[in-house]
Amino acid sequence: MDAVNRIEHALQAAISRAEAPGCPPKLAAAMRHAVFPRGARVRPRLCLAVAAACGDDEPRLSDAAAVSIELLHCASLVHDDLPCFDDAATRRGRPSVHRAFGEPLAVLTGDALIVLAFQSLGRFAHQPQRLALLLLTVSRSVGVPFGIVAGQAWECESHVDIACYHRSKTGSLFAAAAIAGAAAAGADSELWRTLGEKLGEAYQAADDIRDAAGDADEIGKPIGRDVALGRPNVVLEFGLAGAIRRLEQLVGEAIAAIPACAGAADLKSLILLEAKRLLPKKLAQYAA
Amino acid sequence: MDAVNRIEHALQAAISRAEAPGCPPKLAAAMRHAVFPRGARVRPRLCLAVAAACGDDEPRLSDAAAVSIELLHCASLVHDDLPCFDDAATRRGRPSVHRAFGEPLAVLTGDALIVLAFQSLGRFAHQPQRLALLLLTVSRSVGVPFGIVAGQAWECESHVDIACYHRSKTGSLFAAAAIAGAAAAGADSELWRTLGEKLGEAYQAADDIRDAAGDADEIGKPIGRDVALGRPNVVLEFGLAGAIRRLEQLVGEAIAAIPACAGAADLKSLILLEAKRLLPKKLAQYAA
Repeated sequence: MDAVNRIEHALQAAISRAEAPGCPPKLAAAMRHAVFPRGARVRPRLCLAVAAACGDDEPRLSDAAAVSIELLHCASLVHDDLPCFDDAATRRGRPSVHRAFGEPLAVLTGDALIVLAFQSLGRFAHQPQRLALLLLTVSRSVGVPFGIVAGQAWECESHVDIACYHRSKTGSLFAAAAIAGAAAAGADSELWRTLGEKLGEAYQAADDIRDAAGDADEIGKPIGRDVALGRPNVVLEFGLAGAIRRLEQLVGEAIAAIPACAGAADLKSLILLEAKRLLPKKLAQYAA
Repeated sequence: MDAVNRIEHALQAAISRAEAPGCPPKLAAAMRHAVFPRGARVRPRLCLAVAAACGDDEPRLSDAAAVSIELLHCASLVHDDLPCFDDAATRRGRPSVHRAFGEPLAVLTGDALIVLAFQSLGRFAHQPQRLALLLLTVSRSVGVPFGIVAGQAWECESHVDIACYHRSKTGSLFAAAAIAGAAAAGADSELWRTLGEKLGEAYQAADDIRDAAGDADEIGKPIGRDVALGRPNVVLEFGLAGAIRRLEQLVGEAIAAIPACAGAADLKSLILLEAKRLLPKKLAQYAA
């Protein structure tokens, strides 16, 4: 099974367990709506790519790590879309969870997905040492002081360090994806942090570029939100051309940070492919 | 150190770690506001009481379990108080988190506390087998299909089984508190489930009684909310006298469910004391 199928299969299994008889049916439907159909699954693919590069000797544990990270990402999208934050009407080309199911269920869906992420890890008690490391890696990347929740909270502060904001809001979960992939495979996981952090920065730059210059239909959510909401954005900081150069630089730094391993060449190809795919079509021709 | 001091000390340590330099200051303040000053700490005290009854040979792990459960409880209060649910202006006699810090920070505070709960467990990798069991126990009790998030989601459904609603919304975390206390101490944790479930039901009945017949100043939050919001409530179902009888019956069943252990007598005394304390003062004289 290729990485994308592994991820979808594992996510389906996780959501199906949540949908067991006795679950409030609207919550179950909202959770499914938040996770499927699939988005780019960038973070769990990074997790599995790193696990593969490290030998992937416990593939079910790698799947659980990937699932955990994607569920946390989906949870953050559901809560970010709420009326008190972005008030986004659409996500992945469909109504956002609060538009489809109402605000109470959107809050609970985010909560439920966060918990399910940790529950997914808890099912692998036969590798307790790796599990403990995964639990710490994943929880740090989402929580406070430096995880995605902290990153989102910088939007509520009057003084924001843009690098710190992006490192928490986006970089932390990318770093966790890389570290968790290595940890699930029993490798020296800290070696993989820089790769994850650089890819996180690159992804954020690409996201800012799409927000400024993309097409709502192509990216499946409203554009121009960062400017409308006065949020920090690499395009506002460097201009569009500067932002694209910054993206290319970060991708290069990420590739340079791949630790020595058998799967290094495959990982490099994957990263270059991803970087191209992340730019809006009308801009991709300008990138190297 | 007695149980209450242990819990406060461990909660202070957990929140202090979240407040590290680099944390968005408003989020840190909102997290502290949500957790301190202390509420009744009923669940973590149950957790430590069960751990003590089981020998408590890893007290720092028991503390982490208790902290984890209390943080999840605090998170659920912050989200339950949001405008889209109860829209509660006060909690524990002070402004609710969204009234004090705004709705975005209230959503993020709940999220951050959920993550911190799991992160607190992750710090005890030297007992990985117990940690894995704790992770599964705690995550199940909060998540879907049968945890407190699922319980809260029943309020969004048109048809609700009141027993199922209460079992998820309140009973699940009490059951987890008892099971986690035993698991942290390395005991046969499933033996402690019934005790926790019965205490959860008893606590919910007491909460319903306070909501119907209590005094807002005494209990530190608005009263009459269940009736105003048309929510399931044991007083609406059985009347006030019937609800008090039901509470007494549940406390008796909880005590009968204490597994054979050295600390059984102490635990029984603690439970009887708690049960009395939970009733509004003007009703306590009518209870046995």
